[in-house]
Amino acid sequence: MSFHRMWTELLPVGRGSASGGYRRFAWTAADAECRAWFREQAEARGLAYEADRNGNQWAWAGDPAAGDAVVTGSHLDSVPDGGAFDGPLGVVSAFAALDELRRRGARFDKPFGIVNFGDEEGARFGLACVGSRLATGQLTVEQAHRLTDGDGVTLPRAMEAAGHDPDAIGPDPERLARIGAFVELHVEQGRALDLSGDPVGLASAIWPHGRWRFDFRGEANHAGTTRLVDRHDPMLPYAETVLAARRQARLAGAVATFGKIAVEPNGVNAVPSLVRGWLDSRAADQDTLDTVVTGVEEAAREHAAAHGVDLDVVRESFTPVVEFNHALRDELARVLGKDTGLKVPVLGTGAGHDAGILSGTVPTAMLFVRNPTGVSHSPAEHATEDDCVAGVLALADALEGLVRT
Amino acid sequence: MSFHRMWTELLPVGRGSASGGYRRFAWTAADAECRAWFREQAEARGLAYEADRNGNQWAWAGDPAAGDAVVTGSHLDSVPDGGAFDGPLGVVSAFAALDELRRRGARFDKPFGIVNFGDEEGARFGLACVGSRLATGQLTVEQAHRLTDGDGVTLPRAMEAAGHDPDAIGPDPERLARIGAFVELHVEQGRALDLSGDPVGLASAIWPHGRWRFDFRGEANHAGTTRLVDRHDPMLPYAETVLAARRQARLAGAVATFGKIAVEPNGVNAVPSLVRGWLDSRAADQDTLDTVVTGVEEAAREHAAAHGVDLDVVRESFTPVVEFNHALRDELARVLGKDTGLKVPVLGTGAGHDAGILSGTVPTAMLFVRNPTGVSHSPAEHATEDDCVAGVLALADALEGLVRT
Repeated sequence: MSFHRMWTELLPVGRGSASGGYRRFAWTAADAECRAWFREQAEARGLAYEADRNGNQWAWAGDPAAGDAVVTGSHLDSVPDGGAFDGPLGVVSAFAALDELRRRGARFDKPFGIVNFGDEEGARFGLACVGSRLATGQLTVEQAHRLTDGDGVTLPRAMEAAGHDPDAIGPDPERLARIGAFVELHVEQGRALDLSGDPVGLASAIWPHGRWRFDFRGEANHAGTTRLVDRHDPMLPYAETVLAARRQARLAGAVATFGKIAVEPNGVNAVPSLVRGWLDSRAADQDTLDTVVTGVEEAAREHAAAHGVDLDVVRESFTPVVEFNHALRDELARVLGKDTGLKVPVLGTGAGHDAGILSGTVPTAMLFVRNPTGVSHSPAEHATEDDCVAGVLALADALEGLVRT
Repeated sequence: MSFHRMWTELLPVGRGSASGGYRRFAWTAADAECRAWFREQAEARGLAYEADRNGNQWAWAGDPAAGDAVVTGSHLDSVPDGGAFDGPLGVVSAFAALDELRRRGARFDKPFGIVNFGDEEGARFGLACVGSRLATGQLTVEQAHRLTDGDGVTLPRAMEAAGHDPDAIGPDPERLARIGAFVELHVEQGRALDLSGDPVGLASAIWPHGRWRFDFRGEANHAGTTRLVDRHDPMLPYAETVLAARRQARLAGAVATFGKIAVEPNGVNAVPSLVRGWLDSRAADQDTLDTVVTGVEEAAREHAAAHGVDLDVVRESFTPVVEFNHALRDELARVLGKDTGLKVPVLGTGAGHDAGILSGTVPTAMLFVRNPTGVSHSPAEHATEDDCVAGVLALADALEGLVRT
C-alpha cells in the first residue's frame, strides 16, 4: 500500500467537520479506529502484531526476542483540534519505509519493529507520553492510577472501557532491552528546515523545558464602584508578566508562552480575586532557560508587589535536556548524506517526544520532515507530499543501514 | 425587633462556611429562606404582605391603591461569594426605619411600603435587576423566557420550582403608578464617605456603564517549537489592552476592568487561537466613558495589528447615565441636614440598582451608608453597626417627611 493510500485512509478518523482539526484522544472511539488501522497494516504485511501491557502497539518482522532490534514509529493520537501530521506521519512513514526496504530487497539481519506509542499527546489525562513513560518507569503505576480526564474517568477505567486490561500496566524493561535502535520520524514543529531549504533533518537534542504556575492573588471587588487606587487587581501584574515573558524569551533566543489561564470569580463586573497563569518555557540549554524563568519571575514579583497582590510560583513539571545518541545520529547523518554529499541539518527541538522518553534506555534518533509554515498542534499543520516521500526514503535509508549487521 | 436582632437573624442564611461569603441566588433554597424571613417581618408588624407577578415582595401599611405611596427597600439576593450588606442592609433598615417611625408616633398620611426586589444581582441568570426590569418593561417576557442558568434551567422553570407562577410575569405599570416616591438605602460600594468622614450620603446619579467583549483571534501553535517571530499569539495584545484600560481609566478618573476571560484551547503547551476578554467600564458622564473605551479600543487594535492578530470588539450591554429625581434629592438633603446644618455628601455611583431601573418611572432616591474599606461583592464588605444605625435614622427622617402630606 502506498504512502498516499495509507495517508488518505487514516485522514478522516477523528477529524472535526467544523475546524478540520483532530480529536484523537487516548482510549476513545477515534483512538480505537486508529489502533484498528495500525493492526490491519501490520497484518496486511505479515507482521506479528502485539499490544503491550501499557497500550503501545507493535508490529514485528523477525523475532524481537533475538534482541538488538531496529524499531521505528511514533504515535497516532492528537492534541485537541490538532493537525494530521504530528504523530501519524511517523507511523505511516514507518510502514511505507518497510515497503520500500522490501521493494529494494534489503537484508534484515535484525528483528525489525514498527510501534504506535499510546497517549503521546496527553490531551485526555494531562500528561504526555504515557505509554512510553509507563514502559520506562518514568511514570509509576501509582501515578498512572491517579490520572483522570475532564469527565472524572481515570486512566485505568478508560483503558478497561476500551478493552485493555489496566492491571498489567507498569515498567517493561525486558521489552525495551530487546531494542538496539529506535528512530522516530516526525513533522518539524518549526520552520528551521523551511529556512534552510532542506526536506529532511536530524534531531540533536530536545530542549530542556518546564511548566510554572503563577498564582496572583488579589482582592475581589466591585468593578463599578471600587476606585482604581483601592484595588488589588491580579489581572494587572498577570498582564505585565505575559509581556515580560515574551521580552525575556526574545532576549535569550528561547520560547516562553502563557497559553492557559484560570480566573476567579471570572465575572464581567468583578475585580478578580485570583488570576492563575501557566508559563511554558524552553531553551536550547539549561542556563538559558534558568535566565528566562528567573527574569519572568522577578518581573512578576515586582508588578505583583506594586499592585498589592500576592504571588506564588510553582514549578509543575520539568524535563532536562535530552541529547540523542551521538553515535546513532552520526551514523544516520553519514547514511543520509552519502548520495548528495551534503550535510544533513541537525536541529534542536522544543517539543517532547516518545523518542526523548526512550533515549535514556535505548539508543534513539529522530528525523524531521519540513513543515513549510512551521505551524503545529493546529489544523493548519502541513507537509507537502513530496517532502513526506523524501522523509520515507530517508527513513528507509537510515533503517537499511541499521538492520544489517 | 431591633436592627441588631433582624440583622443577626438573617446573617447565617446562604452563607458559605469556607469563605464566609454568601450564595443567595434567585429562586434557590437560600433565596426562599430570605423571602420567608421578609414575610415574617411583614406579618410581625401587621403589614399586608404580597408577592407581585414578577416575584418582588411587598409589605404595606395602608392601602397602596390610594396612590402616592412612599416605598423603601432593596434586595436580599447576593453575588457569588458576596458580602452581607449589599441589598440586605436596605431591607433590614426599611423595617427598622418603620419601627423607628412608629416609636416616634409619626403620622402616615400616605400608604407606606417595604419592598424586596427579586433577583437584583443576576448571579444565577446573568442579568441584573430582573424583578424591577420586568415590572418596568425594560426586560420583556420573551427575553425573560430565554434567561437560563449554568445548569440549563430557565427562569420560568426556576420560578415554578420555587412555587411562583411564571405565566404572570411581565410589565406591572398599575403597581408602579401607585408609588409616589421610592428610597433605596444601600451600603456604599466605594470609599467616598470614608474619605469625607460621613456615615450617610445621598446618590446623585448612577454612572453610565457598559460591557465590551474583545475577541483577539490569533493562530494556535505549539508553545515549544514555534519561533516567537512566527507566532500570532492573542495573549500578548490582550495583556497590552488590560494595561491600556487601566491607564485610560486613570487618566479620565473613570473605572475600567478586565475581570473575565476565556481562552482557546487554554492549554499550557499551546499558543492560544483565541483570547476573549470582557471590559467593564463606567464614568461620571457619557463623554468620559466614550473617551476611555475609544482609547482602550485604539490600543487594542494597534497591539493586535502588531502581532498579526484579528480583533473584534462587541458592545454587549450599555446603560446610560441615571439621574435621580432632583426635587426628591434636594428634599432629602434638606431633611437630613436639618439637625446638623451640615451638607449631606451627594455621590455618584458606578453600580446599577433597582432604584436606577425604577427612576425612569417613579421619583427615586438613594441613601448610602459608609463602607470603611470600600470593598464590595466580597465577604470583606462591611459597615459598622453605628453607621448602620445612623443609616436607619437617616432613612426614618427621610421617610417621615415623605409620608406626611
